[in-house]
This record gives sequence, structure tokens and C-alpha cells, in this order.
Amino acid sequence: MKGKVAVIGVGMIKFGELFDKSLENMIQEAYLNCLKNVEKGIDPKEIKAAWFGQWSGGFIGQGAQGGQSLASMIGNLDISCSRIENACPTGGDTFRNACLGVASGVFDVVLALGAEKMRDKPSAESLGGAGGGGGAETGNHPSWMMGQGGPAIQAMHATRQMHELGYTMEDFARVAVKNHHNGSLCPYAHYQFEITVERVLNSPVICWPLHLFDCCPQTDGAAAAIVCRADLAKKYTDKPVYVWGSHLGLDHNQLWDRSSFVSQPSVVRAAKGAFEMAGIEPKDVDFAELHDCFTNTELMDIEDVGFARSGEAAKKLKDGEFDMHGKLPINPSGGLKAHGHPIAATGLGQIFEVVTQLREQADKRQVKLKNGIGLQQNVGGPAFGAAVVNILSRSR
Amino acid sequence: MKGKVAVIGVGMIKFGELFDKSLENMIQEAYLNCLKNVEKGIDPKEIKAAWFGQWSGGFIGQGAQGGQSLASMIGNLDISCSRIENACPTGGDTFRNACLGVASGVFDVVLALGAEKMRDKPSAESLGGAGGGGGAETGNHPSWMMGQGGPAIQAMHATRQMHELGYTMEDFARVAVKNHHNGSLCPYAHYQFEITVERVLNSPVICWPLHLFDCCPQTDGAAAAIVCRADLAKKYTDKPVYVWGSHLGLDHNQLWDRSSFVSQPSVVRAAKGAFEMAGIEPKDVDFAELHDCFTNTELMDIEDVGFARSGEAAKKLKDGEFDMHGKLPINPSGGLKAHGHPIAATGLGQIFEVVTQLREQADKRQVKLKNGIGLQQNVGGPAFGAAVVNILSRSR
Repeated sequence: MKGKVAVIGVGMIKFGELFDKSLENMIQEAYLNCLKNVEKGIDPKEIKAAWFGQWSGGFIGQGAQGGQSLASMIGNLDISCSRIENACPTGGDTFRNACLGVASGVFDVVLALGAEKMRDKPSAESLGGAGGGGGAETGNHPSWMMGQGGPAIQAMHATRQMHELGYTMEDFARVAVKNHHNGSLCPYAHYQFEITVERVLNSPVICWPLHLFDCCPQTDGAAAAIVCRADLAKKYTDKPVYVWGSHLGLDHNQLWDRSSFVSQPSVVRAAKGAFEMAGIEPKDVDFAELHDCFTNTELMDIEDVGFARSGEAAKKLKDGEFDMHGKLPINPSGGLKAHGHPIAATGLGQIFEVVTQLREQADKRQVKLKNGIGLQQNVGGPAFGAAVVNILSRSR
Repeated sequence: MKGKVAVIGVGMIKFGELFDKSLENMIQEAYLNCLKNVEKGIDPKEIKAAWFGQWSGGFIGQGAQGGQSLASMIGNLDISCSRIENACPTGGDTFRNACLGVASGVFDVVLALGAEKMRDKPSAESLGGAGGGGGAETGNHPSWMMGQGGPAIQAMHATRQMHELGYTMEDFARVAVKNHHNGSLCPYAHYQFEITVERVLNSPVICWPLHLFDCCPQTDGAAAAIVCRADLAKKYTDKPVYVWGSHLGLDHNQLWDRSSFVSQPSVVRAAKGAFEMAGIEPKDVDFAELHDCFTNTELMDIEDVGFARSGEAAKKLKDGEFDMHGKLPINPSGGLKAHGHPIAATGLGQIFEVVTQLREQADKRQVKLKNGIGLQQNVGGPAFGAAVVNILSRSR
């Protein structure tokens, strides 16, 4: 795929509790923002296919959202559009499938869009219920998590990180502090306020040792990217961003099959595949948007992607290496911690951030670029056994 | 894509009311049958990616089935696997995405697999409920069909076919008679018995003018195909089948936006795209597996794909043109009418049939080949606004 695929436009909406917007509204707004973002302009009819990331339609009863819904909502029935659902990595995987579609030579210009209404139902019936096996929609099949929702699984990881790696609740809280700071500078974030380690540790315990502020919020949102043949990209923009690596990594469906609780093999596999495709190493990356659904998860992600050895992420974080102006900024957007996690929109929101940073258009949250390479990562699904890593670069 | 992609193995299980098999059982059986079907053998580890078609997991509460479920169930965690959900064309679209994955140059050998448990819930809560807007899972979003289930929509089409084209209930019934005959010769069909026009017309009315035997049954099933780079195919089999055309066509989400009820624009678009890619015309096709969820739908499919002009399909059917040994056999497998419609498995079951016929391994139901070209088609989704057409050939 390297050298064949470029991003020519990205768009998202401000994530939040968007009770005043329908799914259609959010999709249309992200799509129009995306079209506007194509520097030299684009005729929507040039888009010949789309991949539509959508989770909530199936799982929490927000209506059936097949590929045709996207086509119908953006008023372009001449596209082919598949719906991708792949749990929490749905957004990153939607982008991956769009890239494969372009690399195939069948389509020159395609759209990847993810959108979710997460707040129209209470948490217990939304991500909490579906993810936790409490919901009627997902609880009755043994391949799902059987009562183990996101906080419960990550709390097991966190206790093991404390036991094996010596990590502390303060270490986890520092992830929240960093990401809330970054989010306070990002106009798209759900939460745009700073917090302190004390505030995290004094917030209610959701699932020990994770506090309220160790968890990302549940949020509505939509985000999109227009993906194009690399050799045509300059027609649309002087600042194309090229896709160097893209890989989906998987693992067992069940926690009892896991050999470690301080590492997520799905992430290790996704990163390995993406780096191999890109032909680079973690040290070549300037910054990354990682899947911090919980604070301890970001520390695992950092290690599993290869930015730190196991047990070293917390110290590097404390030393400021992952700060916005540190050696390797992690989640300059504020991450899921500040943006929330509208499943299919999350990964594409991260792609938005990586592209915006690589174009040096990130305003107050702009990181310093060296090699001009950024990385996006998601993880989730039953037992967190699905992960995706996309690596993007300013150079073809 | 033409010239780049081949099918080297197909596998399915006997469709039916499979209360004695779990989703895992069905997936594993179809997968193992598919591996065995690769003539010169294949090491499962050569499969590097998969696309998993799954509808019921999200929509009728059979558990969350992301891509990792397939990987975990077949015991190969080193694959990348996305879940595709695209309503009734999920199976054909899963195959399309697998083909794009190979055409991209990223993967040499991939798996497309679709499986559904449709019978563990009563019809009213299964396809009937979800499709009809009666189910809690899908009824509460206005982009879905708002009370219009499959039978109701197709009954509207059927009455319009009667009014505009002069079609009769006998014409519809003849589709059932033909397909039940074909199905009686196919060991994979759910229903393996003959019926008569009289039996169709004397069966209970489901939604006038459609009788019970105008409707396909609800059925459990699984089917799979292994897709490979065309230039590597002969390593695995002396009888590769090549993918010449593959296209997904869409239409509005709502019936009130439809301009005709004797044609489905999604099918017209899918066929146009697939024929353009293949560089052939409908007259070049030897036989086809079309989406006969209802008998009148097959007549529309025949016309929309381009095998007959509008209003001419019924006469050609009556004249025997679409019989197994007619000029253009339609649904030599028995179609959905005899196989049932386990959503994501349906399209891949049709691919199984097309490949088996093109290899001349279809035993009692073998059709005569001239050009060695077969076609597969699905249609469905809200207002039947999603369709897929795949065109396969013995020649590269």
C-alpha cells in the first residue's frame, strides 16, 4: 500500500453530548467539513466509493445503518459503500478498508466516515451494556465478554500493571492530566478543561483502581477522511498525507486465553504489521494518537506499539517525554480521554488529528515535526482482542 | 480487479434449521470444507486476512461478532479480519471486500466467510422483526424501513408488477416451482422437495399477492471462499475461477424516494458497475445465482441485471429459458427459495454455487457452459436499496 494511497481531506465535528443533532446531521456535517478541507476543491461526484464505520446501529439499537444509509444521507447514490463494524477499532479499520479500496486500483477517490449516537440511550444500555454483556443485544452469546465490560477488563490490566510493573494510580492519573491539558487546546474535544492528579484520585472509583477520570466519556461524534490514489493527490491539495502502513491485529475472544495482562497482543500484532508495511521503526515516528479509553490503556499502548519497553512508559510519561512538546507527543488532540469515544468516529477523529498535525495546521496544539510521520492506533472488542495501527507521512 | 483475483476454494454447510450447531460449529465446518476444497492443498497460515460477513450478531442479538470472532473461532490469530454488515447483500459484499483486499497487493491469500444463526429466535424477533421495524433493535431510527418488512415491500413491488407489466400470481409461482425443482437436486439446500403452482397458490397469503411459497424460508447457514492473487492461483488448483467484475450498487433508504416499483435501482447500478468492470454484457453470461428472497424479486432481478427487458422475464420463465437446462439457467442451486436466507451466508453460498458450476462439479444440477461465465447477485436493506453483483469466469 505504501506509495499508493494518500489522504487529501479530513473533517470532523466537535464531539460531545449532541442531543440536538441526529445521526444524519452529524454525518452530513462531518462530510461537508471533509469536502471543504480538500484544499483545491473536489466535486463530490469524484468520490466513487465509501466505507462507513458504524457500531451503535447494530448494538445499541439506534437503527440499521448499512452502507446505503451513508450514501443516502450524503446524497450520492452512485457510490459503493460497505459498512464496517469491528468494535472499538471500527474507525481505524474503516480507514484501513478505504485505503485497501484505493490500493486495489478499482477506485481513485473514496470516503471513510464513522459516526455514532452514543448518548441517546443511558450508559447502561449503551457502550456499558453492550460491552459489559449486560445488554440484551450482546449478552447472550458466549463469544462476547460475559459480563466483562471495558472498565472491568482494564481494571484487571491495571492491577496487573501495578503488580508486575510497579505502576501506581498516580501514574495512571498523569495520563489523564496530560490528555486533558491537550484537549483544553483542541476545539473538537468533548472535555476542554484541565484536571490534576488529585482530582483524578479523588473522583469516584468506577472499577478499582480506575477512577472516573481514568475513563473516557461516552460521546456522540462523527469524523471522515477522503482517501485518494497517491499519484493523483496533488491535484486536490499541495499538502497530501500519505499512508505508509495500515494493519489490523487480532487476539482471542476470551480473557482466559490471554497470556499477559500487561500487554495486549492485538496491539502488538497491529503495530508489527503496520511498521513492516511502512518500512520504519517506532523511533521514526514524531507523534501518535493512541487509544486511551482508560488511562492505564495508554501506558500499555505506548509499550505495545513499541514506543517504550514494558514497564518504562510511566517513567517516560512522568519525565514529560509524551507531553505535547516532549520527545514523542502522545495524544496531542487530548485523546479519547478528552474527546470521548464515539466508536466508529474515534479512529477517524484520530486520523483527522494526525493529518492536521502533519500539515502543521493544529494551531495551539501543534507538535514539532522531525521526520513528518504520525501514527494512529485503536484497540477494543471482546477481551480487547482487536487493534488497528495506521502510519501516515508527509512524504510519499 | 479483472485479471488480478481468483477463487481457489469454496465451502459451505447444508443450510437448514441447525439448532444442534452453534455459530462456531457452523463457521468451523464451512471453513474446514473450504480448506479441503483447495484442490492441491493449502496451509491455513497462508491465509493472511479475512472478511467476516455477519448480520444477526448486531441486529437480532446473537452476540457481538467482530472480525476477531472469526479469527478466534478458526484458530488463526495472525490474520487481519474486518466484519462486513450490509443488510441482505452482506455475503456478496463480504466477497467483494475480500477481492479488493487481494487486488490491493497487500494480501496474497484471504478468506471471505459469512455465517448466521437465524432460527434461535422466532421469526418475529429475527429477520421479520428487524427487517420490519418491529424489533426494538432497529425500529427506532427513521432511516430504517418504518414497519415495512421484506414481504410488505416486495408485495408492493408484486402488485405493481401485476399492474404495470401484466404479471400474475401464476408467474410468481413458477419461480418457486423452478427453484424448488433445482433445490431438490442440491445437497446443500434447506428445502429439497418439489412443489407445484397449485401448492404455491393454495398456501397461506403472507402479504398479498405473495403466498407462503413465494417467500424464502428463514434458515441457519455458513459459507466461505478463499480468494487469491490470480497469478498464484494455479499453485493451489488447476481449476481456479477468476473474478472479472464486482460492484455494489445503492439507492435511497426510503420507499417514498423510489421512482419505480417494477425495478430496483440498486440492482441496476450494481449490475452496470460489474459488467463495466468485466468488460462483458449480460448475453455473455452462462448462468446466474440471483437473489430470489421472494418469487417476484427474481423476475425483477432478471430484468434489472439485464437478462430480459422489463416485462419480459415472466414469459421467458414460462418458456423454460431459465430452467436448469434452458438458455440461461437462473438459480441452478435452487436459490434462496430452496436454500433459505442466512443473510451473510447467502451471497457466499451463491459464490460456492457459481464456482462449483464453473468447475463442472455440480453433479445432478450441472448446467451447460458456453463462455464459462457465471454471475452472483444480492439485493436488500432498507427499501431494498443495496445490491451487489459479482461476475466470475473460468478464464483469467
